[in-house]
Amino acid sequence: MGLMRIVVLAGGIGGARFLLGVRAYAERHGADVTAIVNVGDDVWMHGLRICPDLDSVMYTLGAGIDPDRGWGRADESWKVKEELASYQAEPTWFGLGDRDIATHLVRTNLLNAGYPLSAVTAALCERWQPGITLLPATDDRLETHVVLAEEAIHFQEWWVRHRAELPASNFVFVGAESAKPAAGVLEALAEADVILLAPSNPVVSIAPILAVPGIREALTAPVAGVSPIIGGAPVRGMADKCLSAVGVECSAQGVGRMYGGELLKSWLVDPVDRATEVEGVGVIPTPLYMTSPEATAEMVRVAVESLP
Amino acid sequence: MGLMRIVVLAGGIGGARFLLGVRAYAERHGADVTAIVNVGDDVWMHGLRICPDLDSVMYTLGAGIDPDRGWGRADESWKVKEELASYQAEPTWFGLGDRDIATHLVRTNLLNAGYPLSAVTAALCERWQPGITLLPATDDRLETHVVLAEEAIHFQEWWVRHRAELPASNFVFVGAESAKPAAGVLEALAEADVILLAPSNPVVSIAPILAVPGIREALTAPVAGVSPIIGGAPVRGMADKCLSAVGVECSAQGVGRMYGGELLKSWLVDPVDRATEVEGVGVIPTPLYMTSPEATAEMVRVAVESLP
Repeated sequence: MGLMRIVVLAGGIGGARFLLGVRAYAERHGADVTAIVNVGDDVWMHGLRICPDLDSVMYTLGAGIDPDRGWGRADESWKVKEELASYQAEPTWFGLGDRDIATHLVRTNLLNAGYPLSAVTAALCERWQPGITLLPATDDRLETHVVLAEEAIHFQEWWVRHRAELPASNFVFVGAESAKPAAGVLEALAEADVILLAPSNPVVSIAPILAVPGIREALTAPVAGVSPIIGGAPVRGMADKCLSAVGVECSAQGVGRMYGGELLKSWLVDPVDRATEVEGVGVIPTPLYMTSPEATAEMVRVAVESLP
Repeated sequence: MGLMRIVVLAGGIGGARFLLGVRAYAERHGADVTAIVNVGDDVWMHGLRICPDLDSVMYTLGAGIDPDRGWGRADESWKVKEELASYQAEPTWFGLGDRDIATHLVRTNLLNAGYPLSAVTAALCERWQPGITLLPATDDRLETHVVLAEEAIHFQEWWVRHRAELPASNFVFVGAESAKPAAGVLEALAEADVILLAPSNPVVSIAPILAVPGIREALTAPVAGVSPIIGGAPVRGMADKCLSAVGVECSAQGVGRMYGGELLKSWLVDPVDRATEVEGVGVIPTPLYMTSPEATAEMVRVAVESLP
């Protein structure tokens, strides 16, 4: 029997920290790990292609992340941003750090040369050696837009510029209908022994991955999900605002039911949420605070062992 | 009678410093100044369009230049460059400073949106307020390549990477045949009362401007040139190596004769070079060290007053 193969669907900071635990678990148990990462947050700014979720994951696993912010590079400076503002170049509200910009330059240059995002990500990971195969959900353009009262804006504008404070009525994944899974995604899912849903934002991190036609159908291995909501609130971020926009209760039970029994075999919730019930899904109370990679690895062990 | 109109052909650091003097002269005498700037040094690196001569002039006139290096921004940092090297992104030998990169991002973004370089330069100058109209010689792609024994390489590679140490047999201005003068260039020349050749490198700064079809023919106003060579050596830079490659003696007389009587009415040389003779050209000895904008303004006064 070969190595166990684990595929994780992930996005953002919660996804990045979860993957630290998955990697720790895999190192101990000899598993092979592939992360399929959300690209709905990706955006062009100042002519640069920015992939916040791929970068958060890559920097976190490569020990280049700013641990306090949870995004962008450690030991960062902001000269370019300052100068762009002096040119009155819009947008001025997005945090483009100097070190971070080098990543975007390399990526943009390779994309403009015709390489797909999956190949570009692999090239960037040559440097960062994340120890996990990182795949974008799709090589095609898929962007999460937020439907407001009278317009729809890019997710980043809603999230970063407006701090998720404008009332949203829905999220649309522009380009999803015609997007194809990125190179390697269907192969990784076909070979997976277990699939994990990271405790990422279910509405804007996990849902855009599942919106790529073909991915949901390819989840034939058993799936365990980890709740991003503990005691009725997101551990970090603004998932509560996203959930309320789509009419889902901000609770471990609400998110578990949103994913539902067709997707999940197991649903890990924190012990404070042990009363959670999701039809057709095994609810497993286990501590969900990701206080260290080791604590998260234990969560991963519980998730893996909950599956047939 | 309106303002006197002065047009200067210029490139690089010598051009930038000369323009400080032209501006000082113009402020005192109420003249209007347009600089037609070399683009032969321009280059794509890391997906960014870099215009070293336009930037040296813009930063110098806008008080943003690093006065010691003579190129790039004051108070510069090099994080992006360091990171690009960590990605092993080539080339690693070109000095892309963090503040400088913002200029290239804005420029590249506008060029990619379809604006010609002349319009992009005007947009960048909105910030820097150089007090002089800056025009690229052409909006088309014109690049100086250096002919070596067995290959030709971009001027920047020869100049910056190899410190002009590889034996060059010629310089070719790739794209020159089909280049057109940039928007505004022919109009400025048609309205000029006097035309000045800055003490820039004659081979790789002034010659590529004159290589744009239509520009040389449009020099109908009288032309005064300022020698970049004093006492048989360039004041700064490596013009000696460029001159020897094209078989021109590195002297005020050599360069004056290279330009010749068809182009020049007057030729300003330093008093140390007062023995200079150029057929059909009035040789005018006057101090040529640009020790301050005021000293340079005096040189400009002599040049202007030497013309009919």
